Amino acid sequence: VRGSAELAQKILRGDRLSLARGITLVESTPGSAPGLLKALRPPRRAFIVGVTGPPGTGKSTLVDRLISQYRKKNLRVGVIAVDPSSPITGGALLGDRIRMAGHGKDTGVFIRSMASRGWTGGLSRATSSAVQILDAAGFDLVLLETVGIGQSDVEVVGITHAVIVVLMPGLGDDVQVSKAGLMEVGDIYVVNKADLEGANQMVTILLGALRGRPQSPSVLRLSALPGKDIAGLVDAIEEIRARFSKAPKELNLRSLRGMIVETARGNLAESLQRVSESKADEMASQVLLGRLTVEEAALRIFGN
Amino acid sequence: VRGSAELAQKILRGDRLSLARGITLVESTPGSAPGLLKALRPPRRAFIVGVTGPPGTGKSTLVDRLISQYRKKNLRVGVIAVDPSSPITGGALLGDRIRMAGHGKDTGVFIRSMASRGWTGGLSRATSSAVQILDAAGFDLVLLETVGIGQSDVEVVGITHAVIVVLMPGLGDDVQVSKAGLMEVGDIYVVNKADLEGANQMVTILLGALRGRPQSPSVLRLSALPGKDIAGLVDAIEEIRARFSKAPKELNLRSLRGMIVETARGNLAESLQRVSESKADEMASQVLLGRLTVEEAALRIFGN
Repeated sequence: VRGSAELAQKILRGDRLSLARGITLVESTPGSAPGLLKALRPPRRAFIVGVTGPPGTGKSTLVDRLISQYRKKNLRVGVIAVDPSSPITGGALLGDRIRMAGHGKDTGVFIRSMASRGWTGGLSRATSSAVQILDAAGFDLVLLETVGIGQSDVEVVGITHAVIVVLMPGLGDDVQVSKAGLMEVGDIYVVNKADLEGANQMVTILLGALRGRPQSPSVLRLSALPGKDIAGLVDAIEEIRARFSKAPKELNLRSLRGMIVETARGNLAESLQRVSESKADEMASQVLLGRLTVEEAALRIFGN
Repeated sequence: VRGSAELAQKILRGDRLSLARGITLVESTPGSAPGLLKALRPPRRAFIVGVTGPPGTGKSTLVDRLISQYRKKNLRVGVIAVDPSSPITGGALLGDRIRMAGHGKDTGVFIRSMASRGWTGGLSRATSSAVQILDAAGFDLVLLETVGIGQSDVEVVGITHAVIVVLMPGLGDDVQVSKAGLMEVGDIYVVNKADLEGANQMVTILLGALRGRPQSPSVLRLSALPGKDIAGLVDAIEEIRARFSKAPKELNLRSLRGMIVETARGNLAESLQRVSESKADEMASQVLLGRLTVEEAALRIFGN
């Protein structure tokens, strides 16, 4: 715990190496290093924005453009990119290198990719912890990028103050859009690559899919790669950020609810992870012998 | 419980309506109707085959062809198609209608689609229960089709005796393939739509990705839609089925381990689902007031 307190002090002073070490700690330690997070007591000043959407919609490019825009406003920007790649692809590391290229020498920017290493529950908890660490380290804006493939990837953005869902023309009929719950989580919907054919159609489909929502989210068209119409997105973000600055409580409660639920999800996934092979084998044998049902075995699997 | 015993008796006698009612029960009841499953005591005679892979690779067509092949062998075939569509698309119902078209009048075939209704944990448990019910109802072969998008979709096939992973040309570089853990779960890999350009390349990539596996799985090329080279797939399945018939214990233990873990996953997801809104709000307020950390709140969220 003493090590945690020291590390926390350095993070609070803005030491980048300690910041990186802190995130590595919550990423690798089961239980997300509670000592560190307790010592940090994040001030909840950072404005946290989630960016999610199907693969290939240009989320990383969009995040890159947002970093540039907010650096012009002199805000310090921290980025957590959740990249649930398998160990085979090593996607997370490669992503880091590509991203760092543009902002690598800017000390007002900190970018970190996190890989799930095949364990969604742990990732959701580590993500929540990493965002808290960036908050404690004094970043004004924290961007959390997740690949919106599965439901759990999308739910992670529930820990933020505002969610941008990134789509692109031609995705209209794609099952993934509705399947992953993307239509439920966004505050701002972006049809990126809007120069491509079908952008209007995508906007129409999107407006239709969002019609059931109690408050209509913003729907914007832009092209992140050439940087076209990024200003409109910044305006939409700034509107929510102004609300956050004026009365942070409401959005902080939303973000904290999300963080608590994602952390609890991580704890549960860990319980499952901790079930030993031999315990599972023993339970399976009991079922095969007819002594237990599958359901009874599932209830007993966490015992000794 | 008396209702469960009666329903169980009817399912064991092969009554189709009761079978359908039983599956609806495990799909809709939290806890997967333990009374019913206890009363059924599935005999573990059915050979259970999982079919998974990214969207659009032709899994449903392949399953359809396998039904026809195995009906020729006079095996009774039960199918559970897990279709995690949002309520918006109603995908599961539509899927049922399309599939039933070909085999609707054949009483040796029972097909059921299950939708996740936004709750992966519950689905994994219900799937395990539904497969047990089909076993109890006397089906010789149970096919479990899941869309291999996220990790949890793929893990569900761990409840089977054999797993077919369906891919297609052009998917080689697709992040989804490696991300979802598809390279770890398959006993048989199928490159479907093998008439399309890039089939050879896909096979090469696949063999490379599978090189690290202790036992080399089969890799096959076929075209399910025109029904080309299906025989090779049937041979590969029959090889595993012969092993199952000769010494069922090993594969049954594998399947039961998977069922127990998936059922436990369902139980855990349900715990999270049961957390009341007001409880989550209260915990978030405590964190905002600085009385608890997010991590402490996550541990307390399941209390009263």
